[in-house]
Amino acid sequence: MTKVTAQLSVSLDGCYAGPRHDGTGNWMESAESLGFFRVTRWVIDAMAWRERLGFAGGEQDTNSQIMAETFAAAGAYVMGRRMADGGEVPWGDEPPFRAPVFVVTHRPRETLVRGGGTSFTYVTDGVAAAIERARAVADGRNVAVAGGGELVRQVLKAGLLDELELHIAPVVLGAGMRLLDERLDLDGREGIELTPIRVVHTPQVIHVRYAVGGRARLVLDDRGSGGGPARVEVAAGD
Amino acid sequence: MTKVTAQLSVSLDGCYAGPRHDGTGNWMESAESLGFFRVTRWVIDAMAWRERLGFAGGEQDTNSQIMAETFAAAGAYVMGRRMADGGEVPWGDEPPFRAPVFVVTHRPRETLVRGGGTSFTYVTDGVAAAIERARAVADGRNVAVAGGGELVRQVLKAGLLDELELHIAPVVLGAGMRLLDERLDLDGREGIELTPIRVVHTPQVIHVRYAVGGRARLVLDDRGSGGGPARVEVAAGD
Repeated sequence: MTKVTAQLSVSLDGCYAGPRHDGTGNWMESAESLGFFRVTRWVIDAMAWRERLGFAGGEQDTNSQIMAETFAAAGAYVMGRRMADGGEVPWGDEPPFRAPVFVVTHRPRETLVRGGGTSFTYVTDGVAAAIERARAVADGRNVAVAGGGELVRQVLKAGLLDELELHIAPVVLGAGMRLLDERLDLDGREGIELTPIRVVHTPQVIHVRYAVGGRARLVLDDRGSGGGPARVEVAAGD
Repeated sequence: MTKVTAQLSVSLDGCYAGPRHDGTGNWMESAESLGFFRVTRWVIDAMAWRERLGFAGGEQDTNSQIMAETFAAAGAYVMGRRMADGGEVPWGDEPPFRAPVFVVTHRPRETLVRGGGTSFTYVTDGVAAAIERARAVADGRNVAVAGGGELVRQVLKAGLLDELELHIAPVVLGAGMRLLDERLDLDGREGIELTPIRVVHTPQVIHVRYAVGGRARLVLDDRGSGGGPARVEVAAGD
């Protein structure tokens, strides 16, 4: 059955890149880039990713296997406009997706057909429509929300995401582009409940995959701890 | 050798409680409390914690074993003033620490000696001094920063923390009191590097313990990925 999935590399504090680049100067020299390359270091080392991108070398390890599974599981992609624009030239004639990609944008454009099975179709009627377009051609595999983080958050917020996998790199960035924050518009008395599906840890990164439940009101449940918050604060550290 | 440690239960998005209670009305009915009880649910179920608090029942499971280890490893505690004030009455004559507690505060006060080996010593010359006072009496066990989250962040920011363990509950709160954020004053071009020591996962929570390295400048290292950020964005989801 086709699931809508997303996976993102983040720091322990949930940043998938450094502070957003303001567009002036070279992105590669920006703080956004520095944070981004730190949390995705495991990806760039993975042979399965390097092969897709046509780069030599790489590690044939657990991280690489997870990356290979990630590519194999996707039958179609949904992508944000910023990512698609940034990738169009460098991805060249044979982009690494090898599947149909549906780009969420406000600007109508003819479908761009590339080699190796990749095509870019520009969808102007919203992310839900893009997901349905992708689902229709995913051939039983998953619809992968390729990113960027803004789009992943939008899909989660809309309740359209079935699975979320975070690859947590052992670093704290403190400042940066955060996936999960106030922009989800949770009101402080509700949460999005998750069910862990798989946890794989390596020295470079912890891979945590969750099934995404719906939004749910938080119910006070102190398990008979006797009430007073202070009692609970003891073991919980606050 | 005595280490300075901290452990905190958080949501997947790094919140250890809901939005901070404004002090009006009942804390137990606040959004802060709702989020706090959600991320600490595993603690309240743990027999090792319930025994310390004098509550009946509880689960004798992996989570409980981790809680038991956490209590056993601490030879002395450092605690924030808000937590100490909140706990003083409910903890009663035999607080659960069973070790000396050093409270970081601006208000001088005589040491409060309780039963079962717990004492509260009020330290007015800062967190570093409180940690040294605790280290001197920890008898080779760890100095545990008991919380709250503000104090844990302060200790991490000051470079005084040797180990940080997060207990990550499978929920997204979106809004709440966040442990790791801009208040660490990282400038977007540096990070705090961590080394994973132990990862234990249960259906209720993922326990992730890290050794804390120092602040380090982030070095651009694209592992020969060919430069363009877009190429890297493919697999990383942004």
